[in-house]
Amino acid sequence: MSIMKPRTLSGFMELLPGKQAQFEKMVDILRKTYASYGFAALDTPVIEDAQILLAKGGGETEKQIYRFQKGDSDLALRFDLTVPLAKYVALHCNDLAFPFRRFQISKVYRGERAQRGRFREFYQADIDIIGDGALDILNEAEIPAIIYKVFRGFGLTRFQIRVNNRKILNGFYAMLCLSDKSSEIMRIVDKLDKIGADKVRVCLMDDCGLSGEQADAILQFMAITGSNAQVVEALEGYAGRNETFDQGLAELKAVTANLSSFGVPEENFAVDLTIARGLDYYTGTVYETTLLDHPEIGSVCSGGRYDDLAGYYIEKKLPGVGISIGLTRLFYVLDEQGLINPELPSAPADALVLPMGDCTAAIALAEELRAGGLRVQLYAEQRKFKQKMAYADKLGVPFAVLLGEDEIAEGKCSVKNMRTGEQIKCTAAEAAAHILAVLDANSGAIILEK
Amino acid sequence: MSIMKPRTLSGFMELLPGKQAQFEKMVDILRKTYASYGFAALDTPVIEDAQILLAKGGGETEKQIYRFQKGDSDLALRFDLTVPLAKYVALHCNDLAFPFRRFQISKVYRGERAQRGRFREFYQADIDIIGDGALDILNEAEIPAIIYKVFRGFGLTRFQIRVNNRKILNGFYAMLCLSDKSSEIMRIVDKLDKIGADKVRVCLMDDCGLSGEQADAILQFMAITGSNAQVVEALEGYAGRNETFDQGLAELKAVTANLSSFGVPEENFAVDLTIARGLDYYTGTVYETTLLDHPEIGSVCSGGRYDDLAGYYIEKKLPGVGISIGLTRLFYVLDEQGLINPELPSAPADALVLPMGDCTAAIALAEELRAGGLRVQLYAEQRKFKQKMAYADKLGVPFAVLLGEDEIAEGKCSVKNMRTGEQIKCTAAEAAAHILAVLDANSGAIILEK
Repeated sequence: MSIMKPRTLSGFMELLPGKQAQFEKMVDILRKTYASYGFAALDTPVIEDAQILLAKGGGETEKQIYRFQKGDSDLALRFDLTVPLAKYVALHCNDLAFPFRRFQISKVYRGERAQRGRFREFYQADIDIIGDGALDILNEAEIPAIIYKVFRGFGLTRFQIRVNNRKILNGFYAMLCLSDKSSEIMRIVDKLDKIGADKVRVCLMDDCGLSGEQADAILQFMAITGSNAQVVEALEGYAGRNETFDQGLAELKAVTANLSSFGVPEENFAVDLTIARGLDYYTGTVYETTLLDHPEIGSVCSGGRYDDLAGYYIEKKLPGVGISIGLTRLFYVLDEQGLINPELPSAPADALVLPMGDCTAAIALAEELRAGGLRVQLYAEQRKFKQKMAYADKLGVPFAVLLGEDEIAEGKCSVKNMRTGEQIKCTAAEAAAHILAVLDANSGAIILEK
Repeated sequence: MSIMKPRTLSGFMELLPGKQAQFEKMVDILRKTYASYGFAALDTPVIEDAQILLAKGGGETEKQIYRFQKGDSDLALRFDLTVPLAKYVALHCNDLAFPFRRFQISKVYRGERAQRGRFREFYQADIDIIGDGALDILNEAEIPAIIYKVFRGFGLTRFQIRVNNRKILNGFYAMLCLSDKSSEIMRIVDKLDKIGADKVRVCLMDDCGLSGEQADAILQFMAITGSNAQVVEALEGYAGRNETFDQGLAELKAVTANLSSFGVPEENFAVDLTIARGLDYYTGTVYETTLLDHPEIGSVCSGGRYDDLAGYYIEKKLPGVGISIGLTRLFYVLDEQGLINPELPSAPADALVLPMGDCTAAIALAEELRAGGLRVQLYAEQRKFKQKMAYADKLGVPFAVLLGEDEIAEGKCSVKNMRTGEQIKCTAAEAAAHILAVLDANSGAIILEK
């Protein structure tokens, strides 16, 4: 047979089993946390009708999309989970209870130019709450609680959920009679962190044609920081001059007011007036999340409130709020930096049963250990003891359970802790309990803060 | 904005939230069972290089494949999980510990002609054990135990794992000097159930040119049934005449000998000499699984032993054994027949918190219930009581938790069982425990036998 050299396409993440186990742990935390807030799991097709997927149109997206013919059909792979959600809700709206809460953790496809850390196939972990006609502000207030639980679930404490409100920004620019330039201004203000206030001032004047007073007013506004109470107080100074601004401020107060009831500590939360989020369709609260010790990663969880999810599919007004985590990139970056906890067991089994004599007894022992709650692999190959232990080492299994004629005669087994080398002899039930206890005591954060 | 009517492509399963929850439960059982036998979770790309995916070639597959260009790349969507596994093992073989055990529950793509119950995107739930050069027969013996645990996990008892060995068949046909016709013969014998022995006899003679004696010998062989011990005894009568047959018989004995140690009751297992499995690459034990009350569904879990997983990618000999469940079709067929247990809760939350007054207290209550282990949705919309209860009904949530001023004053909440109508007043911690206890008592099989 002629041999064809195997390869995986560039831009596609394919992990070795140990890394995959770490990735799955993150997915598991996300799934459990999203579910704990009453979001329904959804699973939409990877392939959609291209016309429908691109109904909204849009430049960059259209260039990157995987689009192809099959028979007479014009098909495309989903490039995000939001457009399929819009289609889903529009299509099934009579069967759904609103507000409709769904989560989806699935792969999306973008044929970007391949480069280090950019993926053409990647997981997004999204939640959205969709209202039928209206959606209470409390839903926007709940989102930071969910973000907080997710990142605490990953084992992190040094992260910050940053929140702003598009109505505050739009209202503020309206006060300065700069509504028509607001998108342009927001793009420049977004660079504050990178280029500093002086250069932003120059850009605002040179690129947007603002007066010095207008630029100063914007910089002064963007410089508002402090505790939630302090920021709200400073914003109160702008109140009463623009209806949209006042509405945004009321929304921001509702979001910040309930943080402690939701269990979000103030140190993990900040109002940040410089956040706008690029997308035009956000209309209220917007969210970004940064790892405080790793600002270079950028926002690891973003989203916001929108007023019109599915206007291109249905006449119904469907406002919503949602967030998204780019999981594949997040995992890649954390792994590159050595921040995925290597101490957590990532072997496919908690225990490897090594028969030293009669296989029948070893089979029964493995089944007993499984009944005790363990993931157990039975090593069936007839090899020398040394080779069996070498396999256990390569697999990285935390415990080897040895069963020789002596153990069988005693109705026991020998449990070897592969990390400490410690070995004890006990019954199968005791072995399962012992192994679970040790694993439990050694469990820790998935992501390290370093 | 112009409206484009949304639709989902035909042949693509897109479930409503309640059905999706049922589907997820089946996936969960599969994942946990596979993991309990020490299989590592894998996740390979949906898109692969078309040349590599089609290295083995093959008629039907090539016609059905989704293949397209992107830039200069010749791409294709995976049509099964076995070829990507072969690529993976060949590519990463130096980093893997052998025997390598992996499971993958993922979507695959086949552009078949759309028809009822046929899917173009569907989940396969696969396990494989791959050896480096050799693989002990005990691995083949373990497979029925895993199948048994999966279907018991689904809640079924009336199913049968049917096993045969290709070496027994090949050896038997060699005894009759019919090796060159064995594929043809197996195709006809496969129809025994449908068309009966007489018609099979005619086909064997007319289509394959067999003599009456040869056809009778085959039918006599295929008629061997009974307990494992009886079948083995009958097969012993053929022993000593062909080496391949004798090897197959020894393997079959090893597989059947350990069933009780593996915890597989004899009534869920049968040696069935009529099973061959179509694929040429099976070389030893082959498996099929049927639901005894629903033979029309056909085999719901099939697979077998093969000797050469990745010969077209690598010179290394990689024998293995694996099984696959076509999950999407299985779910569809069971659901069509009303066999997916409708009594199991499929709402996205265990409890819906309905604030009747102060929201802050309701938020804190919801968080307490979550801390107690519940999936909790907070209903934030300001609606009338009747509309709130209508939402609870439509969502199908098993419990509503009401919090009015009275309850707040008492430090309690009112827990309403939506099925029985029973309502109790208690603390948040008591509510969580009560709800968990009721849900636990009502848990049952995912699949009904009817």
